[in-house]
Amino acid sequence: MRFTSEQRLDDGVLERGFTLGEIPGILWTPGSASAPAPLILLGHPGGLHKMYPRLVARARHSAAEGFAAATIELPWSGDRPRSAAAEEARADLRRALEAGEPVDDEIVDRLVLPLVEKAVPEWRAALDALLSLPEIGGPAGYAGGVIAIGIRLAVVEPRISAALLFAGSFVPRTMFEEARQVTIPLQVLLQWDDEGNDRQTALDLFDAFGTKEKTLHANMGGHTGVPQFEGDDGNRFFARHLK
Amino acid sequence: MRFTSEQRLDDGVLERGFTLGEIPGILWTPGSASAPAPLILLGHPGGLHKMYPRLVARARHSAAEGFAAATIELPWSGDRPRSAAAEEARADLRRALEAGEPVDDEIVDRLVLPLVEKAVPEWRAALDALLSLPEIGGPAGYAGGVIAIGIRLAVVEPRISAALLFAGSFVPRTMFEEARQVTIPLQVLLQWDDEGNDRQTALDLFDAFGTKEKTLHANMGGHTGVPQFEGDDGNRFFARHLK
Repeated sequence: MRFTSEQRLDDGVLERGFTLGEIPGILWTPGSASAPAPLILLGHPGGLHKMYPRLVARARHSAAEGFAAATIELPWSGDRPRSAAAEEARADLRRALEAGEPVDDEIVDRLVLPLVEKAVPEWRAALDALLSLPEIGGPAGYAGGVIAIGIRLAVVEPRISAALLFAGSFVPRTMFEEARQVTIPLQVLLQWDDEGNDRQTALDLFDAFGTKEKTLHANMGGHTGVPQFEGDDGNRFFARHLK
Repeated sequence: MRFTSEQRLDDGVLERGFTLGEIPGILWTPGSASAPAPLILLGHPGGLHKMYPRLVARARHSAAEGFAAATIELPWSGDRPRSAAAEEARADLRRALEAGEPVDDEIVDRLVLPLVEKAVPEWRAALDALLSLPEIGGPAGYAGGVIAIGIRLAVVEPRISAALLFAGSFVPRTMFEEARQVTIPLQVLLQWDDEGNDRQTALDLFDAFGTKEKTLHANMGGHTGVPQFEGDDGNRFFARHLK
């Protein structure tokens, strides 16, 4: 991991850009940390530049409660090399959505499974690098979207102790089996009136999770309208499990 | 309203028994209140003696955040006169549950509709009496079970500004129409693995609520296993809307 930029935000949070091999990422650490801070990995749908305003807001909110937060670019997104297969799957998804058609399982598989296969080892490598920094201490959590990445991390990565997952309907059917293997505490956010999201799939997935400590928070407000108080609830969830 | 008993609990909360006509009730007020406290009405399934341990725990938790809490006995429960029709409906319900049969809408109607008709005016009379006390200030909230009572109160009682409802499946179909008329902020608690509760009915009811400010919290732990952190979440919900 190589730091490429550093700035102090007005609330004292230290924001550092880094690269991990060819993968760009961002690390935020609390301004006033006496002990190593527990780490929250911030998931997102890809495109760090576009997602930056929302990511930095989430990171600052977490830092105010003493958490470090970090994210990396997804494969085939942002400034990273494109994949023809991923582009084609995205185009097929877009076509189905624009036509108002149900999205074939086959499209979801082509879109999500290779992404999970490639992204999860990268997030684990980022975890290796981040947890070796003296200002960061375990355990770690995962918060955010591409719920399939969160599920796989929760199953294969023992250093992820809790996950706050944003419900999304593009979940390959095989991931439901993986969901049954999740045993860490989960909080799942569902936007009840998100028209681009299949509510029943989200509820079925919540039902499938094997952990006994799972909580579903459903709210109104559309796809991007997660109420502000869920940020506080998320911090409390991680405080219960990472501190 | 006539106070019939008074004791100071070890955390300073003042607990007073009262009667409102023939109806017994309990009022809890915070130990150190400088201003009039907002009031939370504590709903329950009937039987104040039996429910007391859980009610006092909820009241103390609310009082710690500056809320007064109060409850009254339900019609035909506890020390109040019985109703032959209500006893028969309860027996029919018990028989259906013990036989593992689905509960007829007709039984639910006979059980719940007369209860709502009789209880809601009593809760409103209690609200009249309680809000006239100098130590209590509006607005008020309703928290708890017999969700049908909570729905009716939310629709007809303008002094109820927010409600935290415990999902239950014994909701008359006509109450779904009333649910559409609810416009106050709601938080709905659902025990996901509550075998005595029809999950789909609870989800359908949550969907039906007309308010834009509705949040569903689903947890594991069985019928009585609501996680402790939901008490804090409930306080924060009421703090957002009653303070």
